[in-house]
Amino acid sequence: MGSEFELIDQAFRAASPSRWPGTEVPNGDDASVHACEPGTAWVVSTDTAVCGVHWPQDFSLELAVERAVCTALSDLAAMGAEARLVWASAMAPDAAAITMMGRGVSHVVARFGLELAGGDTVRAQTTGLNVTVAGILPQNTAMRRDAAESGDDVWLAGRIGFSAMGLEHWLSGERDVDMVSAFAEVEPLLATGTAIRELGVRCCIDISDGLVQDAGHVAVASGVQLHLDLGACEDWPELVAICGEHHAVDLALAGGDDYALLFTAPTRLRDSLAGLARRVGDCREGRGVVVSLAGKPLVLPAHGYDHFA
Amino acid sequence: MGSEFELIDQAFRAASPSRWPGTEVPNGDDASVHACEPGTAWVVSTDTAVCGVHWPQDFSLELAVERAVCTALSDLAAMGAEARLVWASAMAPDAAAITMMGRGVSHVVARFGLELAGGDTVRAQTTGLNVTVAGILPQNTAMRRDAAESGDDVWLAGRIGFSAMGLEHWLSGERDVDMVSAFAEVEPLLATGTAIRELGVRCCIDISDGLVQDAGHVAVASGVQLHLDLGACEDWPELVAICGEHHAVDLALAGGDDYALLFTAPTRLRDSLAGLARRVGDCREGRGVVVSLAGKPLVLPAHGYDHFA
Repeated sequence: MGSEFELIDQAFRAASPSRWPGTEVPNGDDASVHACEPGTAWVVSTDTAVCGVHWPQDFSLELAVERAVCTALSDLAAMGAEARLVWASAMAPDAAAITMMGRGVSHVVARFGLELAGGDTVRAQTTGLNVTVAGILPQNTAMRRDAAESGDDVWLAGRIGFSAMGLEHWLSGERDVDMVSAFAEVEPLLATGTAIRELGVRCCIDISDGLVQDAGHVAVASGVQLHLDLGACEDWPELVAICGEHHAVDLALAGGDDYALLFTAPTRLRDSLAGLARRVGDCREGRGVVVSLAGKPLVLPAHGYDHFA
Repeated sequence: MGSEFELIDQAFRAASPSRWPGTEVPNGDDASVHACEPGTAWVVSTDTAVCGVHWPQDFSLELAVERAVCTALSDLAAMGAEARLVWASAMAPDAAAITMMGRGVSHVVARFGLELAGGDTVRAQTTGLNVTVAGILPQNTAMRRDAAESGDDVWLAGRIGFSAMGLEHWLSGERDVDMVSAFAEVEPLLATGTAIRELGVRCCIDISDGLVQDAGHVAVASGVQLHLDLGACEDWPELVAICGEHHAVDLALAGGDDYALLFTAPTRLRDSLAGLARRVGDCREGRGVVVSLAGKPLVLPAHGYDHFA
């Protein structure tokens, strides 16, 4: 067998000690096979992260890969799924980078008790990782973008603006862990996603491209207007203290990479949800997104991060 | 909405008119959701194809992308699965290439009646496509690499050597469709895969990295020795007529990109399988792969294509 296969074995296949009981054919065949559990649905998301686009050139490759897997898991969290399986395809100019990427993938796989079900490696000028993740949930319970209703509360689990602030610090040369960790370490809110789904929440999205853009997706898909109060978001005073109110507003509205969960719920769920997220607004008749601070509506950016703008 | 999202919509999301009845949440949310059918298993494979590695720089991007999706589908064929869902992540330096890639994906999606369940686009120096495909089959019926038994026949559905020959013609400047189509057009043998699984075949692999290497995977995983007769392969005389016996042997043994199905089956299945494939050898006690031509064993290459050799 050639060295590509040894690399895959070393860096990827061996990375997955755990296996779900339903896995009939694990990693290492043409495809993996997973028995369906009656009454459940599969939830699948795929994402490609590329060096120089999704993380800075001088960033730790191992951390970048962990981040990439975690951002894919954040999509499962937003649906309310229990994460189970990961497929990872790594591209890089050399074998050392592939090994490093395998290490990053295996850390996340172990940390969340997942199974690495497959993947491949390819030599390319660009260093990048494609991650496909799958989870399960009971049929017809997935949280979606189009299920918000006028009169619902809007909730936010997790902080916004801090990740973009951490990235700015990194790009300015700052290497103090406390200042850049909000960008470096993505925590997919899987437990929160499952908990709010079980409480009856039916509309959720993860904030990856900026609060305004992602809240806008919910508004468009559901045909409602979202009213949000920035000051009600978790740790808002801390963000203002670090970078001033004007810049804090920019970062929170359109910074991106937050991986917080924005969801809507009928008011009767207020007491149950209070320990899981912050209530930051409500849904009304109308279109689009209105964000206020101290009672005043803010001027909103046209859109968040755009690869081909 | 930014232009990235318009591009995704135009080039990818709109490409999928069909939806499986089990799809609860289609393309366009954080993840897609697919209800499980009782008694079935999901079969999933992922692959990354990169310009300059998996196809020549001057090759049609649209065709290259169709090819990439078809090679992923070939993995499902090798397991015996019915293909259902595709997730596609495209990277390219410009929006025009992304649009072209979306067109290639949509052609294959339409041709095989699949559903495009998700994906993303990213700007990168490298042009490449990651494809994840999923299919279903009855539980505990998947064809695997480790199920060959001593005494089984070895069968081959599809031709070998022709794709590598077509690529050589392309690289030498030949643009005649007949001469390069064996490389340009990959036909995933989905119907054959399903048919042989239903007849009771339990061991199969698709020939993507060369006959010797992939037959070797079956030999190692199953703990048997595979004996193959090159002259019994489909259209072997034609390949010899085009490029001479010496070169035909090289192409057939290690050329790769064949996407033929190699499978093993007990001798009692001979009559049923005769219309679906060619019987090209048998499994014996021992290790490794022996390939003969006109009764004489050939000297075999050490391994097939290796990205990091």
